[in-house]
Amino acid sequence: MIQPKMNQKELITPNTTAQIYNIIRHNGEINRMGITRISGVSKSTISLQINKLIKLGLVEEKTPPDSSQRKLKLRIREDLGYVAGVFLGITKLSIIIFNLDMQITCERVHYFDSISDPEQCNKEIIRQLKELCAEHGIQRLWGIGIGFPFPVNFREGKPDSPPNVPLWHDYPLRKIYEKEFGCPVLVDNDVNVMALGEGYKGCTTDESDFLFVKVGTGIGAGLIVDGKIYRGANGCAGDIGHIAVDGSAVRCHCGNKGCLEAVTGGKALAVRAMEIAENGESPYLKEVLTRKEQLTAGDINNGAIIGDLSCIQLIKDAGNAIGEVLAKLVSFFNPSSIVVGGGLSGFGNLFIGAIREAVIRRSLHLATYELNVCISELKEKSGPTGAGTLIIDHIFSSQEFTSTIKRNLTPG
Amino acid sequence: MIQPKMNQKELITPNTTAQIYNIIRHNGEINRMGITRISGVSKSTISLQINKLIKLGLVEEKTPPDSSQRKLKLRIREDLGYVAGVFLGITKLSIIIFNLDMQITCERVHYFDSISDPEQCNKEIIRQLKELCAEHGIQRLWGIGIGFPFPVNFREGKPDSPPNVPLWHDYPLRKIYEKEFGCPVLVDNDVNVMALGEGYKGCTTDESDFLFVKVGTGIGAGLIVDGKIYRGANGCAGDIGHIAVDGSAVRCHCGNKGCLEAVTGGKALAVRAMEIAENGESPYLKEVLTRKEQLTAGDINNGAIIGDLSCIQLIKDAGNAIGEVLAKLVSFFNPSSIVVGGGLSGFGNLFIGAIREAVIRRSLHLATYELNVCISELKEKSGPTGAGTLIIDHIFSSQEFTSTIKRNLTPG
Repeated sequence: MIQPKMNQKELITPNTTAQIYNIIRHNGEINRMGITRISGVSKSTISLQINKLIKLGLVEEKTPPDSSQRKLKLRIREDLGYVAGVFLGITKLSIIIFNLDMQITCERVHYFDSISDPEQCNKEIIRQLKELCAEHGIQRLWGIGIGFPFPVNFREGKPDSPPNVPLWHDYPLRKIYEKEFGCPVLVDNDVNVMALGEGYKGCTTDESDFLFVKVGTGIGAGLIVDGKIYRGANGCAGDIGHIAVDGSAVRCHCGNKGCLEAVTGGKALAVRAMEIAENGESPYLKEVLTRKEQLTAGDINNGAIIGDLSCIQLIKDAGNAIGEVLAKLVSFFNPSSIVVGGGLSGFGNLFIGAIREAVIRRSLHLATYELNVCISELKEKSGPTGAGTLIIDHIFSSQEFTSTIKRNLTPG
Repeated sequence: MIQPKMNQKELITPNTTAQIYNIIRHNGEINRMGITRISGVSKSTISLQINKLIKLGLVEEKTPPDSSQRKLKLRIREDLGYVAGVFLGITKLSIIIFNLDMQITCERVHYFDSISDPEQCNKEIIRQLKELCAEHGIQRLWGIGIGFPFPVNFREGKPDSPPNVPLWHDYPLRKIYEKEFGCPVLVDNDVNVMALGEGYKGCTTDESDFLFVKVGTGIGAGLIVDGKIYRGANGCAGDIGHIAVDGSAVRCHCGNKGCLEAVTGGKALAVRAMEIAENGESPYLKEVLTRKEQLTAGDINNGAIIGDLSCIQLIKDAGNAIGEVLAKLVSFFNPSSIVVGGGLSGFGNLFIGAIREAVIRRSLHLATYELNVCISELKEKSGPTGAGTLIIDHIFSSQEFTSTIKRNLTPG
C-alpha cells in the first residue's frame, strides 16, 4: 500500500513480457482470461505479450490432452533450457538440474572427505556438474544457483570470513563459475537458499513472511520477507546460532557463553550423549558406546525411538531451548510459519513439538494463534531446490529477462 | 535482484507519472537530466511526464532565485494541498499539517485526561483537527495519517484488542475519519508510524532496514524493511515488550514473568525508584519523595543529572536489560540502525550508551561493527511526521496517484 522510497532499482519500469511469462511460469497451465484476471492488465496488452512469448518460443498455446473442454491453455516450454541448483554441505554436494518449469531433470550427490581447500573442492564441484550435464545431453545451462555452508557476501558472490574454512575467505566463487559455465551465477549461504526452496516448493508455498531454521552442527535462520530473502544491512540476518540461551553458561567457540549453537547444536548434543552414556543415565547409549567410539545425533534419535527416556528428554530439552529463542524472534518478526530443517530435524515430531510448545508458551497470542511450526517438506532437497529458485527467479526478472532471452534464444 | 512471487499487487504496471512526481518530491530541486539519471527512463518519456505534471499544476520548472547558473529546475508545487499527521499518546494529541513537500504548515498539541472512551476522544481529535485547519485557512486535506497508542489492524483501520482501553476494540477509526473529512485515511500503531517518520526526516533517512524502539510506559519496536513498515503475518511484528529478559522473575500484567516491559518500562522504573527512595539507597529520590507522592522517570533522570549514583545505576541497568534483548534481535535482523525514542529516551546518552554496550557485547561482530545506536532525532515529532509520511506516500503511490489527482485537482 505504501510506496517505498525512490531509488534507481525501483524505478526501472518492469518488463511486461517478463511479468506475463512469470505468471504462466508460476501458475502452470492458464488461459488468456486467467492472465488478464491475475495481472489486471488489459486484454490487448496481454495478447501482444503472449504473441511475443510464443514467437520467442518460450510459451506454447495448446488444448491440453486431458481436457474435455478443448480450450486453449498457455504453458511455458519447459525443456527449452535448464538451470542448476548446487548445494554444498560440510561433506555432501547435491546437484539438481531443473528445466524451466523447475521440474527435476536429473540430480546427483557426491561426498567430500573435506571441503577445506576451496580450489580442490570447486574443481570437483565443477567436474561433477559438467559430468551430470554431459550424461543427460545438456549442452548449456541458463544459470547456476549455489548454496555454500558459510557466510556469503551475496553482492560480491564471495564467502565472508567463514569460521572453520579460512581459505575460502574472499574466494571469487561467482566469477569462477561464471567463467567456467558462461552463464549467470548467484551464490548465497545455505540457509537462505533452503528457505527460498521451501517457499517455492515445500510447506510454505503460499506464504510471504516466514522463517526457515536449520538445526545441524550449526544453527541458522533464513528470513523470507515479501517472498524474498531478507539479508539485513550487512548480509548476516538470520545468524541466530550465537543468540544466548537464558541461564546457560556453556562456553561457545565464539568466546561467548550460552550460545544456542553451543547448547543445542549437533556437536553439543553428541557431547551430552557421551556424558549420559558414560554416567549410565541412558542404558541405550551406554550399550551403543560399547560398540563404537563416538555417539551421534542419530544414536540419540534411535534411543528415543525405542523409548530410552534419557534420549527422549535430551531431544525435548534441545527443542525447548531452540523454542525459547525462537519465541523472542516470533514476537519480534511475527512470521506465518517456522520451518525446521537440517540434520536434527530428523528428530521428528518429538523435537518439533517441544519447539512449538516453547514458542507458544513465551510469545504473544496474536503472534502464535495461526503460527505453523513444521518440519521441512523438501528435506535434503530444500538446498538445491532453493539454489535453483534463486537463479531462475533472477534470470527471468524484469531486469534480466531481455538479456537472458538474447543469450539463450538468439541463433549463432 | 530476485523477483518476488507473482501476485496481483505486483503486477499492476507502475504509474510512470507518479514515479517521476515522487522523484521530484524526494529529491527537492532537480533538473530533467537528474531525473533521467535517477530513473534510468528515456529522456523523451521523462519530458512527456514532466509536461503532464506541469500541466496538472503539480510541478513547476523555474530558475531558482539563488542560482548563479540560471538553469531550469523542477520542484513540486508544495502549497497546492495539505496532509495531516495525527498522533495520539496516552494523554497527548499531536497534530501537524504538512504541505505536499512535507514541510510543517502548522501544528498543535492537546492534552487528554483520559482516552478510554473512543467516542469522546475521537470527537475531540476531529474538533482539534478541524479547528487547526480553519485557523490556517486550509479548506480540505488530501489525506490523513493517524498513529494510535495500541495494536491496530492496518488493513481494516481498526484497533485490535487494545490491552488497556477495551472500548476501542474494533472501533472503525478509518471509516469515521474518512467520512468526516472526505479524504483517504490510514491508521497504524504508534511505533510503526514513529519508525516511518524517523526514516523520512530523522536520523535514518538513507537507511532501508532499521529498527525504531519506543521505550515509554510500554516498549515496542517498528521494523523498517526496504524502506517500508514491516507488519508481519498478523500485523503484530515488533511487539517486543513481552520478550523475556534473561533471569528475571518480575511478574507482568500479561501473565508471564520477566517481560521486558515489566522489567524496564516506565512504570517498572517508577516502582523501582520508589523502592530505592524508601530504603534510602538514593538520597536524592528520598528527598524528592518528601515533596510528592509518586516518583517518575523524570525524577530518576534529574537524580542522574546531579550525580545520584543509584539513579545513574537504575538508568544503566534499564539500558542494559533492553540492550540484551536487542542483541538477540540484532543478530537475527541485522539492522543498520537502532533508533531509540519514547519518553525514556530522555535519559540520553547514559541510557543509549548502556543499550549500545549490551548490544555490541552480545551480538556478532559482523552485525554490530557498522551498527548505529542513536536517540530519535525528531523526538516528539517522529509520531505526527510518520503519520504524515504514511498518508502522503500512499496518496502519491502508483495505485492511488490518478484518483488523488482526480479528487483534488479536477474543478468542480
